[in-house]
Amino acid sequence: MRLALTLAARGLGRCWPNPAVGCVIVKDGRVVGRGFTQPGGRPHAERVALAQAGAAARGATAYVTLEPCAHHGKTPPCAEGLIEAGVARVVSALQDSDPRVAGKGHAMLRAAGITVETGVMAEEARAANLGFFLKVERQRPMVTLKLANSFDGRIATATGESQWITGPAARRLVHAERACHDAVLVGGGTARADDPSLTVRGLGIAHQPVRVVASRRLDLPRTGQLARTARDVPVWLLHGRDASPEDVSAWQALGAETIEVPVAANRELSVAEALAALAGRGLTRVFCEGGGAFAASLLNADLVDRLVGFTAGVALGAEGRPSLGAMGVERLAEAPRFALKEVRAVGGDVMHVWERAAPAT
Amino acid sequence: MRLALTLAARGLGRCWPNPAVGCVIVKDGRVVGRGFTQPGGRPHAERVALAQAGAAARGATAYVTLEPCAHHGKTPPCAEGLIEAGVARVVSALQDSDPRVAGKGHAMLRAAGITVETGVMAEEARAANLGFFLKVERQRPMVTLKLANSFDGRIATATGESQWITGPAARRLVHAERACHDAVLVGGGTARADDPSLTVRGLGIAHQPVRVVASRRLDLPRTGQLARTARDVPVWLLHGRDASPEDVSAWQALGAETIEVPVAANRELSVAEALAALAGRGLTRVFCEGGGAFAASLLNADLVDRLVGFTAGVALGAEGRPSLGAMGVERLAEAPRFALKEVRAVGGDVMHVWERAAPAT
Repeated sequence: MRLALTLAARGLGRCWPNPAVGCVIVKDGRVVGRGFTQPGGRPHAERVALAQAGAAARGATAYVTLEPCAHHGKTPPCAEGLIEAGVARVVSALQDSDPRVAGKGHAMLRAAGITVETGVMAEEARAANLGFFLKVERQRPMVTLKLANSFDGRIATATGESQWITGPAARRLVHAERACHDAVLVGGGTARADDPSLTVRGLGIAHQPVRVVASRRLDLPRTGQLARTARDVPVWLLHGRDASPEDVSAWQALGAETIEVPVAANRELSVAEALAALAGRGLTRVFCEGGGAFAASLLNADLVDRLVGFTAGVALGAEGRPSLGAMGVERLAEAPRFALKEVRAVGGDVMHVWERAAPAT
Repeated sequence: MRLALTLAARGLGRCWPNPAVGCVIVKDGRVVGRGFTQPGGRPHAERVALAQAGAAARGATAYVTLEPCAHHGKTPPCAEGLIEAGVARVVSALQDSDPRVAGKGHAMLRAAGITVETGVMAEEARAANLGFFLKVERQRPMVTLKLANSFDGRIATATGESQWITGPAARRLVHAERACHDAVLVGGGTARADDPSLTVRGLGIAHQPVRVVASRRLDLPRTGQLARTARDVPVWLLHGRDASPEDVSAWQALGAETIEVPVAANRELSVAEALAALAGRGLTRVFCEGGGAFAASLLNADLVDRLVGFTAGVALGAEGRPSLGAMGVERLAEAPRFALKEVRAVGGDVMHVWERAAPAT
């Protein structure tokens, strides 16, 4: 199962809207097939592993990181495939929450006389596919928030200079994080100020996450990197009702997808509605890179599941731009708390990864 | 020498105004004596090790982390002690910068026919006694600046609540840091807002660092923890010329020492003059715990040698109090940079230690 989970992780950021599943088929103590959900979500892990195992799958045990699917989608169900291949035993990490599966996969296998064990490394498997589970259960993707700060929590000097606070090794890790998310998300202020490309670079990886910008008024420069490359790598623009129709059609003409999102009480785009729109389009894992105001809205709405911080050994002082905007936190007890998962030196900087103790709502 | 350096470290925070030295005496491959500079700075490490070695010192090798002293102070010079004991060879890490020693110790040993080698682990030995070297060479103590922050670089909520952002394990380490410094230093704002005791607690350690508060107007409450305990653990108050004579004498009556320091162009106490006053009173290592404005002044004056950061997994937002005050940094290239020395998880928090690449001026 541990190997299956390792395989599953290879699909992260590439197999949405489907979960990233891993499958290992073992016969007489030998691995005869292994597979993970392929880019675009198909073929599923089980199909890949079964194809590799061929006739050896007969009488074998299949380890799967998620309940095999039971419904006819674009491909026949995996449970059927396992039955046809003559697999004797299926060990699955946990049940799928997708109502089209949700126990039916396991039931189909049992009905065919296959021994089914489940609950093996269930916690790890749920964590690995948290984005998929949140999409199915709460109609929102998992959100990772990145903050790359000076020692004193600043992301730019007073004049806006931010390149570079952290070093090349930290920036490389940011690209790796982008690559294992389905989309990179920034607020309009960041898109205007930094003209980012938001692509994965320098890792020898061909696939790119969707680039999402949340801008209520859609007042983004149409001459920047995103505009220039919107036909090559998807750009989705979340905007409010008051975006001008000219801007909307101009961006569409550039190749971007525009998505109207309701505005919240604070007159900003509703972050909850924005995430719901992204989940509705299939995204399971979103990597938010700021800016401070947008990040603060996500934290305030308790919509951040994972924090990735980079701290550089530089002091910028109180005039520097804060990494998080206003949150209205008065008492420490109200402030969102995260549990430390990992910390290490990365080049000359510190990387620290935190998770919401209980999955955010 | 490595053992001698380990021994030397035991004296840190306790042996000022003297350097923290370690000495190991080896005879025929066996350690026959070990010593470190004792609390209050006397006896010196060599004297302790020689006393332990007794007659076995004859013909032995003494490893010392600093050149043995050559001058008659409150005790006869250590070089003389080594000669009298009949030591055959002295290996010292580096020469003392104190003009009363500065090569004379080594010369005295050589003149007596003792083989002297020097430069062994010199860099480590200098780093270990940086406070002493800075006091002698630049007339200021070494400064460690502690910042205990939220994830986004805040030290308190907008309403000033700061207890506790970090957890008990991190706070315990702060006490350990206090214990290995000669003094704990805070600005007047912190003394007023937090009413701190600034003592070392919970570590089973009897000695206490001097508690120093920098307050230009000396407008500190005379009913708080510092005032109540000034007779038990030293309190030194750095103030400007415009402190009222009533306040000065009231604090003296409470048992505090008051030290007048010139005011800088920005109408605050000159941090350089404040540190010079502390070095003049013998302090070699000062642990600054804020507040933000005072810490920013130290950083701006390039007077911070070591940064100790604690980052908690809590987000406080832009209204929270910043860990550093205004610094006037406009360009990233102007901002003070530090090199990462250590990073690790401490309880649920991250501890990161940084050093000024070149020793600050």
